Amino acid sequence: MTSMHAIVLGSAAGGGFPQWNCGCPNCVAVRERRPGYEVRTQDSLALTASSDPMSGRFVLVNASPDVLSQIQRTPALWPRGPRHSPIACIVLTNGDMDHVLGLFSLRESYPLALYVTSSVRRGLEESAFIRTLRRFPEQLVIREIALGERIELAGPGPEPEPLGLSMVASPMSGKLPVHFVGHAKGSPEDNIALSFSDAGGRSLLYAAAGASADVVLGEHDVVLFDGTFYREDELVRLGLSKALARDMAHVPIDGETGSLARLAGLEARKIYTHINNTNPILAPDSEERRAVENAGWEIAYDGMHIMLEGENR
Amino acid sequence: MTSMHAIVLGSAAGGGFPQWNCGCPNCVAVRERRPGYEVRTQDSLALTASSDPMSGRFVLVNASPDVLSQIQRTPALWPRGPRHSPIACIVLTNGDMDHVLGLFSLRESYPLALYVTSSVRRGLEESAFIRTLRRFPEQLVIREIALGERIELAGPGPEPEPLGLSMVASPMSGKLPVHFVGHAKGSPEDNIALSFSDAGGRSLLYAAAGASADVVLGEHDVVLFDGTFYREDELVRLGLSKALARDMAHVPIDGETGSLARLAGLEARKIYTHINNTNPILAPDSEERRAVENAGWEIAYDGMHIMLEGENR
Repeated sequence: MTSMHAIVLGSAAGGGFPQWNCGCPNCVAVRERRPGYEVRTQDSLALTASSDPMSGRFVLVNASPDVLSQIQRTPALWPRGPRHSPIACIVLTNGDMDHVLGLFSLRESYPLALYVTSSVRRGLEESAFIRTLRRFPEQLVIREIALGERIELAGPGPEPEPLGLSMVASPMSGKLPVHFVGHAKGSPEDNIALSFSDAGGRSLLYAAAGASADVVLGEHDVVLFDGTFYREDELVRLGLSKALARDMAHVPIDGETGSLARLAGLEARKIYTHINNTNPILAPDSEERRAVENAGWEIAYDGMHIMLEGENR
Repeated sequence: MTSMHAIVLGSAAGGGFPQWNCGCPNCVAVRERRPGYEVRTQDSLALTASSDPMSGRFVLVNASPDVLSQIQRTPALWPRGPRHSPIACIVLTNGDMDHVLGLFSLRESYPLALYVTSSVRRGLEESAFIRTLRRFPEQLVIREIALGERIELAGPGPEPEPLGLSMVASPMSGKLPVHFVGHAKGSPEDNIALSFSDAGGRSLLYAAAGASADVVLGEHDVVLFDGTFYREDELVRLGLSKALARDMAHVPIDGETGSLARLAGLEARKIYTHINNTNPILAPDSEERRAVENAGWEIAYDGMHIMLEGENR
């Protein structure tokens, strides 16, 4: 029997929850450990095709700065020998610092395959990130993601071990990472959604950051979607910034063009992730939390296991 | 009354404890939560001159990749307003990835002062790290450390707020970080020990990495010293590497030229830190742990508070 098993390693937007220098009501509440508030690390997902995660090999979606504590909290990702990791490869959804920095923490002489689009690869090369990574003695095998093409995920070896999972990348409207500006022009490859499938046809879409909910999502069993902001002017209302959600290339949950309205008809298990520290859905008793849950959405949390099993589709 | 208060934010060497891809006996024991084994993050220290840490401003020694979880675990470092941090400045002991990466996690539009030697600054500039950091809109004020000169630590503002702490840097024999090789020549400024003093003359030495214990240490109330390896051939014995401690520029604890023998006469509160995951002093019942403790040394742990108070010297 085939299966797909996903573990949410991090469910927060960049900066995490709480954010180190933020004293907004949500951050204060989670620091005080008020009931219902949970610490969240920066967005990342681990996926395996094995029906027993404790023996499966994993693909990591994004390498967050929190990757070491994320691995430590997740027994399925612990080594199974003197020098070992169940992580076989890493896929990046874009070149954001919050998705790339973790690569520098995974460099103790362990081979990994890295899947990136050519535009993200160029950005990483020209901003010297890959040059720096290459200075460490591990074998970092880089493979390019072409939009719309099905890719069979595999480990880094000379005869790459297939992981039993395939993926297809679609463009999502996004924003060039600050550290790429000047090095690279905007491209549809800058920010992608990833559709993962197992051999039985079960599928999961990871679309954790995007400026619009009007994307062709296709049919999926599970959809993880951008839950960064509840409202367009969330940061402005809190007096923390002048930036609107759209200035940061995130479609808010609320409003006519928001994800709650636009994805109302989507038939799938629907989960918000990449949640910013200011988002009122993080407050357990908020009306915004109720609105999201009443519409059938779940809210991702660190350590959430998502199992896709049973009959093939 | 003046005072100095130090908090060990991280007490492990690069990679942390457990290390993500290591299955050595220590790493297995800490993952299984066996009694006496404690998780350790990568080396960093927070210091304040305030007698009440909850209202003091802090200097951070090194910005580890674990900095966000280190701050989160330490109430004295939590924000005291909507956008705030008690951290005023950061001092780097060298340009190692494990001391620099955290800077990328502290970039949510918050001004900080960064103290580095000119050789570390050059390395960071030529390997494009500082260029990348400068792309973010915060104000990163960089100040150079000259060896042997007393520096009054201060915040980043145009009229820098003094922190009530001064420091003097001494060279420690070290090794050029891998990502600087080719960009920079070796220099006595590559790796330093830092002697911190408050206005009352109390002092703390942070010498967390060095190839020799034959350094002029001067008089200090507290000395935090390199506890990376217990033995010269520790990694070889465990079958994990061919590298000796000296190949990695760390003086071991044991042996004729080891730190336990060479620093036996040092009059100070003595604490080993920057402890590698393989070091047998991490095992609560080991003879090596007993040897170190019988010689009057303490072993740093994450969250350890070191208070220097009372009469001026």
